[in-house]
Amino acid sequence: MIYLDNAATTYPKPEAVYEAVLNHMKNAGANPGRSGHKLALEAGRGIFTVREQLSELFNIDNPMQIIFTANATEALNLAIKGALNKGDHVITSSMEHNSVLRPIKALEEIGIENTIIQCDRTGYLNIEDVKRALRKNTRMIAITHASNVTGTIQSIEAIGKIARESKALFLVDAAQTAGVYEIDVKKMNIDLLAAPGHKGLMGPQGTGFLYIREEVEVRHFKEGGTGSKSEELIQPTILPDRYESGTLNTPGIVGLGAGIQFILQEGLDKIRRHEEELTQYFIKRLKEVEMVKIYGPQDATKQAAVVSINIGEEDSSEMAYIFDQMFEIAVRSGLHCAAMAHKTIGTFEQGTIRFGMGYFNKEEEIDVVIEAIKTICEQLE
Amino acid sequence: MIYLDNAATTYPKPEAVYEAVLNHMKNAGANPGRSGHKLALEAGRGIFTVREQLSELFNIDNPMQIIFTANATEALNLAIKGALNKGDHVITSSMEHNSVLRPIKALEEIGIENTIIQCDRTGYLNIEDVKRALRKNTRMIAITHASNVTGTIQSIEAIGKIARESKALFLVDAAQTAGVYEIDVKKMNIDLLAAPGHKGLMGPQGTGFLYIREEVEVRHFKEGGTGSKSEELIQPTILPDRYESGTLNTPGIVGLGAGIQFILQEGLDKIRRHEEELTQYFIKRLKEVEMVKIYGPQDATKQAAVVSINIGEEDSSEMAYIFDQMFEIAVRSGLHCAAMAHKTIGTFEQGTIRFGMGYFNKEEEIDVVIEAIKTICEQLE
Repeated sequence: MIYLDNAATTYPKPEAVYEAVLNHMKNAGANPGRSGHKLALEAGRGIFTVREQLSELFNIDNPMQIIFTANATEALNLAIKGALNKGDHVITSSMEHNSVLRPIKALEEIGIENTIIQCDRTGYLNIEDVKRALRKNTRMIAITHASNVTGTIQSIEAIGKIARESKALFLVDAAQTAGVYEIDVKKMNIDLLAAPGHKGLMGPQGTGFLYIREEVEVRHFKEGGTGSKSEELIQPTILPDRYESGTLNTPGIVGLGAGIQFILQEGLDKIRRHEEELTQYFIKRLKEVEMVKIYGPQDATKQAAVVSINIGEEDSSEMAYIFDQMFEIAVRSGLHCAAMAHKTIGTFEQGTIRFGMGYFNKEEEIDVVIEAIKTICEQLE
Repeated sequence: MIYLDNAATTYPKPEAVYEAVLNHMKNAGANPGRSGHKLALEAGRGIFTVREQLSELFNIDNPMQIIFTANATEALNLAIKGALNKGDHVITSSMEHNSVLRPIKALEEIGIENTIIQCDRTGYLNIEDVKRALRKNTRMIAITHASNVTGTIQSIEAIGKIARESKALFLVDAAQTAGVYEIDVKKMNIDLLAAPGHKGLMGPQGTGFLYIREEVEVRHFKEGGTGSKSEELIQPTILPDRYESGTLNTPGIVGLGAGIQFILQEGLDKIRRHEEELTQYFIKRLKEVEMVKIYGPQDATKQAAVVSINIGEEDSSEMAYIFDQMFEIAVRSGLHCAAMAHKTIGTFEQGTIRFGMGYFNKEEEIDVVIEAIKTICEQLE
């Protein structure tokens, strides 16, 4: 099996991730931050360590500003719904995932306006369009760092500057980039950073986080036991407790810690370079096949390790099925929870076949994929 | 180490739980319900199987009415905030956990009234008081099945009848009972059942669920990618997708499945009987020690395997620290995220030392605990 669905979730994970999850469950499986006994304290420390690792990776000063969530979707919902108020305006792009667009659309009902900026056919967001979209009441700019459909990388740093200058909050969805690309919340003026733990950060599913810059007010949407201020019937205001009611996914978070540790050891540069090389090689070889339509920038320096294609006019889902059944190649087809992105690149009807490369993929696997594509094309002719 | 903090999270888990988590991560670690390739389909099937197991355990007709959440707290928030509307009235009890009381108190702000019925000193809720609390606009009765402080079991079936007759929704917090006590959503007229996966159900942390009876309208509070109706910018209305945006905690849920499988194999009766016997034995032996104050029903047929005590007037946290440091016994102290319960039983200042027994605890461990308590008492005299 050649796994090329890393844009959905990375697989495999580093061995250390499996070991950390198992070791935690077997040897320290208590409830963190609740009790005072050794096992519970160890669980609590394990979680704090991961906050520190994330802080190191993203240049965050205060680890307590990192909120663990069930996934990136929850982090994005918390940021969007928690920070915006009636009368506000939010700017976003047509390349966003439904986890950004659906919450933003839902807020129209309570009087929060939005502008969804149309990106170009490669999925790129022109920063001049961002400037033009600004209004007096623009409270947030919410942008994906890289598209999950085409991989297109947006000019995050430049958009961050615009946000800062216009006093809008800058929310970055780093679902396709965290753990692979440099993200510096200070340099990039990021106020809110949302990411899953189970993609580039190599952690288990069931993990994600939201970083909230100090001084940014975000409403919580769950109340409950926090292990702190138990005597009060109102939710405590201290972070991260305010947003982390109930028992966390401790084994998952500890596993995420092992994933980040792996990344820090290998080095972000090395990981990114490998993925870039694979992507560039894949694009180059795809061009050998006449029937293949490639979407996005077609340039690995301008896109994350995600490549969307179609084969002639064939239905993308049917093609993905053939890749799986005949060639043991796992890819994803359809709209990838991002319909507007497909409208932007012109594939709303057909969808695309998406190849998501990861750090553990190899050039030889790309060769096998290219051969499979050629075989399919021959049979179609 | 003698682990008696099972009311916070059960530990250890059955070996099969560790194996299921590890096996899933290593051999089927794809994203469920998103892609069509074999690994993704296997992940999706794995999750569906757990819905079926939960349905079997709780006599639920349609597995699609089970929503996986990060924990019981999220399930309770979803139920309480999703089902209540401005002008509604909700009845709850003074023995609830903060995960019930805090959301209910937060709703006062938007005009949702509540009655918090005072339970008796053993933590028991008189059902006549429930009847008396009913109002014309009572829309929900939200009750814990068993207290996490005293273990006190409430008359769920009788309260369910009252709820049905008065056309109020019946929400049961089964945090301390799911996986140990019989819960039949039909027989008990339960409209909304919330439980963690990582306590009596023996699954990993990071799991929980909400059962929503068909026809009950519950607003979702997260939108995002659901792998369904991707072409639309509004959240799909089909269950469970409507409430399960983003990638689920697949390894955790699959592990939960192994936990439920273990329970179904052992038999609920056998598990409950073992916990009852331990609890009864513990209560009996505690009575040997004069300085010990025991709270709750002091009768294992009337309480879950949770026993709260104090030693004289000693601070509960200090005592728990001694149990841990000197005797390697893990217990929990303080208010257990349920301050009002402590007011009810008269321990708001002192807190309690809580012993949470689990299926893997043995009578010999109880003997060790009793000896430890006796030693502590001797030194205090």
